[in-house]
Amino acid sequence: MATDATADEDESPEGYDELVGRVRRIGNVDNAAGLLSWDQQVMMPEEGTPARSGQLSALSAVRHDLLTADETGDLLDSVEGEVDGERAALVREVRRDHGRAVRVPTDLVERISAASSEALSAWREAKADADFDAFAPHLRELVDLQRQYAEHVDPDRDPYEVLFEEYEPCLPLDHAERILTELRETISPLVDEIRATDAALADPFDGTYDADAQEAMVRDALDLLDYPWERGRLDTAPHPFSMGTVYDARITTRFDESNPLDALTSTIHEFGHATYTLGLPEADYATPLGEARDLSVHESQSRLWENHVGRSRAFLERFLPTMREHLGVDAGGREVYEAANRVHEDNVIRVEADELTYHLHVVLRFEIERDLVRGDLDVEEVPAVWNDRMDAYLGVTPDDDAEGCLQDVHWAHGNFGYFPTYSLGSAMAAQLYAAAERDVDDLDERVRAGEFAPLKSWLRDRIHRHGKRYETGDLVRRATGEEFTADRFTDHVTEKFGALYDL
Amino acid sequence: MATDATADEDESPEGYDELVGRVRRIGNVDNAAGLLSWDQQVMMPEEGTPARSGQLSALSAVRHDLLTADETGDLLDSVEGEVDGERAALVREVRRDHGRAVRVPTDLVERISAASSEALSAWREAKADADFDAFAPHLRELVDLQRQYAEHVDPDRDPYEVLFEEYEPCLPLDHAERILTELRETISPLVDEIRATDAALADPFDGTYDADAQEAMVRDALDLLDYPWERGRLDTAPHPFSMGTVYDARITTRFDESNPLDALTSTIHEFGHATYTLGLPEADYATPLGEARDLSVHESQSRLWENHVGRSRAFLERFLPTMREHLGVDAGGREVYEAANRVHEDNVIRVEADELTYHLHVVLRFEIERDLVRGDLDVEEVPAVWNDRMDAYLGVTPDDDAEGCLQDVHWAHGNFGYFPTYSLGSAMAAQLYAAAERDVDDLDERVRAGEFAPLKSWLRDRIHRHGKRYETGDLVRRATGEEFTADRFTDHVTEKFGALYDL
Repeated sequence: MATDATADEDESPEGYDELVGRVRRIGNVDNAAGLLSWDQQVMMPEEGTPARSGQLSALSAVRHDLLTADETGDLLDSVEGEVDGERAALVREVRRDHGRAVRVPTDLVERISAASSEALSAWREAKADADFDAFAPHLRELVDLQRQYAEHVDPDRDPYEVLFEEYEPCLPLDHAERILTELRETISPLVDEIRATDAALADPFDGTYDADAQEAMVRDALDLLDYPWERGRLDTAPHPFSMGTVYDARITTRFDESNPLDALTSTIHEFGHATYTLGLPEADYATPLGEARDLSVHESQSRLWENHVGRSRAFLERFLPTMREHLGVDAGGREVYEAANRVHEDNVIRVEADELTYHLHVVLRFEIERDLVRGDLDVEEVPAVWNDRMDAYLGVTPDDDAEGCLQDVHWAHGNFGYFPTYSLGSAMAAQLYAAAERDVDDLDERVRAGEFAPLKSWLRDRIHRHGKRYETGDLVRRATGEEFTADRFTDHVTEKFGALYDL
Repeated sequence: MATDATADEDESPEGYDELVGRVRRIGNVDNAAGLLSWDQQVMMPEEGTPARSGQLSALSAVRHDLLTADETGDLLDSVEGEVDGERAALVREVRRDHGRAVRVPTDLVERISAASSEALSAWREAKADADFDAFAPHLRELVDLQRQYAEHVDPDRDPYEVLFEEYEPCLPLDHAERILTELRETISPLVDEIRATDAALADPFDGTYDADAQEAMVRDALDLLDYPWERGRLDTAPHPFSMGTVYDARITTRFDESNPLDALTSTIHEFGHATYTLGLPEADYATPLGEARDLSVHESQSRLWENHVGRSRAFLERFLPTMREHLGVDAGGREVYEAANRVHEDNVIRVEADELTYHLHVVLRFEIERDLVRGDLDVEEVPAVWNDRMDAYLGVTPDDDAEGCLQDVHWAHGNFGYFPTYSLGSAMAAQLYAAAERDVDDLDERVRAGEFAPLKSWLRDRIHRHGKRYETGDLVRRATGEEFTADRFTDHVTEKFGALYDL
C-alpha cells in the first residue's frame, strides 16, 4: 500500500502526516462509495435500492463528518504555510473542500438530498409524460435550495459561479464562459454551412448488429488500446460511465443494435477516463495528489481518446478489419470515417449529438441554468427559452418537452453548473492533442500502426501523474505551453468538418 | 426505506431514536464493507487489492470510531432500563458490542490486523510448501495477540471463552462444549462401524461435467427453491459464500468438473444462508433487530437446507429429471441419494468431508485452538497432536501438514473460536428440522412435490423475523420447544447412516 508515501520524507512538519491520514480515510470512504455506486448500476438486483441508498447516505454522512471535524480544521491550521510544493498543493485542496463543507449546514445538505430524490422520481414521470408542468415545482425548489447553498458558501458572489466551482473549483467561470462563447460562435455558423451543402456522408451501418458481436468488437478495441484487464473490467450499463482507482479502473458501455459505432466510441470514451485514473500516482492513492483534477480535465481525457483517436481516419482504418470481422460489414475506411463523423443536423438529443453540435446543446443548458440560478429566468419560461435557442443555435425544434428541456437528468439530480464541463473537456482535449502531435513524432502514423504507448506516456507525463498538484489553468499551460482556450478546438472542427463537407 | 420503523411509536424515551440512528449508520457501514468484500472475491480485477484493502481498513476504522464514541456510550446509558421488549433487545446487543470495542485498545486491533495480513501470506506459502515451521512463528504471534485481546476484554475469564464470544456472544462455551463432545462420542464409533462394513454406496457421477451444464443445473435448483432473483444473484467464487441484506442477498458457488453434487449442495447451502438474510424484517434493516443472530444460527439455516432438504431422498428424487437433463447421467433416485450421502472414510480435508465426518474435523480444531489459547498446547506440538487425533477420531493420517494442520485459513486470519460454530449450526439444523417436521404437515411429501413455501414460512416465523431479538438458547427454545442439544442431530445421523450402511 501507499501509506508510506509521505513518511519517507522526514521534513514533514508535525500534523502533516496526521492530516494525510485523515484525508486518506476520506478518500477511501469516497472510493468505497464509488464501488457501491458502480455495483448499483451494473450488478445489483432490482430490489436492492433501499439498502444501497442507506449505505450511500451513511458513507456520505461519514465523509462529511470527517471533513468538517474540528480536528481537520486544526490540522489544516497547523500545517498551512509550513509546507511547500506537493504538500502545499495537498493542503490547498483539502482546505478548499473543508472550507466549503463547514459553511453549509448539514440540514441543508440533507434537504437538497431529499428534494433531489423526489425530483428524480418526478422527472422520470414527467419525462415519460412529456409534462414539464409536473416537474416545474421540483425544479423551482431545487433552484431555490441551490441558491441557498451558494449563499452559505459565499453570500457575496454570483451564486452560479459558486455552484460551478462545485465541479470546477479552480477554473474561473469567466474563463469558462469565454470558451463556451467561442464554441457557440464558431460552431453555430459551421452547422448552418453544413446544413446548406448538398454533401451527404456515408453510413454503411444500416443493418442490425447483435450485442455479442458488438461486445467482441469493443473488447478487441480495448485490447488494441492496451487496456490493462488486470486493473479493470468491461460491463454494460444503460448510461455508460467509468469508475475506480489507479488499481482498479472499470469501464461500462452499451449496445444499440442499430448503431455499433456508438458502442465503439462510448467504449473508447470511457477508456479515456479509465486511462487517466490508471495514470494517477499509486503512492498518493486516496489523497488529492493521487486524484484526478476536476471534471473538465477528466472529460478532456475521454474526449481526446474518443474524438481525436477513436474518430480519426488513422484509427478507424487500423481497426477496420476487426470491425468487418465482428459486424460483417463491407465498408471502406473512408465510409467508416464518414459514418463516425456525420453531423446529425436534425438531432435534438444531447447524448446522440455529434462532435460538433454537441456543444450547442451544452451552451444552451449552461445559459439556461445560469440564468435560473441568478434569478434572471423563471422556471416556467424554461421550455420556451429552450425551444427558441434550439432553433437559433441548431435550427431544430423538439417535438415536445421530453425531447426538449426534460431530456437530461442533471437538474433533477440537483446538479447546476455541471454541463459546461463537458464542452470545456472537449476544448481541452483538442488543445492537448495538438500539443501531443507537436511533441510525439508521427503521432498519426503511430495511431495508424496501433501504437498508443507514446500518446499514453505523453498524457501520463503531462496530466495524469500530477493528480491535483496543479490547478486547471496551470496544468494546461504546463502541458501545452499555452493558456487554456477554445482555439485548438475551433481549428480542429473547422478543418475537419470543412474537409468532410467540402465547405 | 425503513428509517421510520421506530419513529411511529411515540413512547420512545429521548435518546432511543438517536441511538437507533447511530446504530443504523454503523450497520450501513458494515453492509457497505460486505459489498466491497463480495466484489473483491467475485468481480475485482486481480491487481485491485491495495485500494480495496485501504477501503476496507477505512470502513473498519470508521465503524470502530462510531461504536466506541462517547456519544454512543452516553446514549446507551440514557436509555438502558428505560425501554423493554424489542427495544431492550436492541440496547442489549449494542451495549455488548460497545462494551467489547471500548475495552480493546485501537493499536492492538491494528497490530492484530497487520499480523493477520502477514500471517495470511506466510500461510499461503507454508501450505504450498507443506512447511509448518515457516508458519509457526506467525501462529505463535497471532495466538499471543489474541490472548492479549481476550485479556483486555475480560482479564478474569478463560481467554478462549472470550474469543469464542466474538462469534457466539450469547451461547455459553460450556453449552457449546457439551454439544461438541456429544457429536464426537456419537460420530466416531459410527464411522468405525461404517469402516467395518462391506457396504459400498453408489457413485454414478464418474464422468466430467462442464461448468456451464453445472451452472444451468444449480440455477434450476434455485428456481425450484424459489430463490428471489430480484433480490439476489449467483456468481462463482473459489470459496463459496453468501453476502447481503434483506434487499439483496447474493450467493456464490463453484464448479468442480468431477463433482457436480458439490456444486449442487454448496449452492443449496448458500441458498440457506441467503434465505435467512431475506427473511429478516425490512423495517429493522441495519439494526440488530434486522440482523441475523450469530454464526451458529446462520449455519443452522445453511445446513438445514443443504443436509435436511438438499441431501434428502425426497428432494433428490424431485430434482432427478433436471439433473439428468443437464448432466446427461443415467442414474436412479436411490443411486443419487447414496452418492450425495457417501461417507468418505479416507478423506483428510474438512471442506470435502461428508455430513458425518465433518464434525470430527471440527472437534479436532476446536480442541487444538482451545488448548493453544489457554496455553495448554505449544505451537510446535500442533502437527503431532493434529495427526494423532485424526487417527484417533477418523482413522486417517494426512500425508503432510498441507493436508493436515495447514489446510484451513481461519487461524491465519486470526480467527480462534470460529470452528465450533460450524458444528453447532449442524446440530441446531437437525433440531429445527425435527421441529418443522412436527409442525408442518407432510413436510417430506411437500419437499418431494417441490413445495418449499411451508418450510420457508416456518423458518421465517420461528427464526428469521426475530433478528437478534432473542439470545441463541432462547431462540432455539422458542422455535422448537426444547433446549438446544445435539440429540436431534445424533438421532438423525444414527438413523440415516444406519439405514444407508445397513448397520
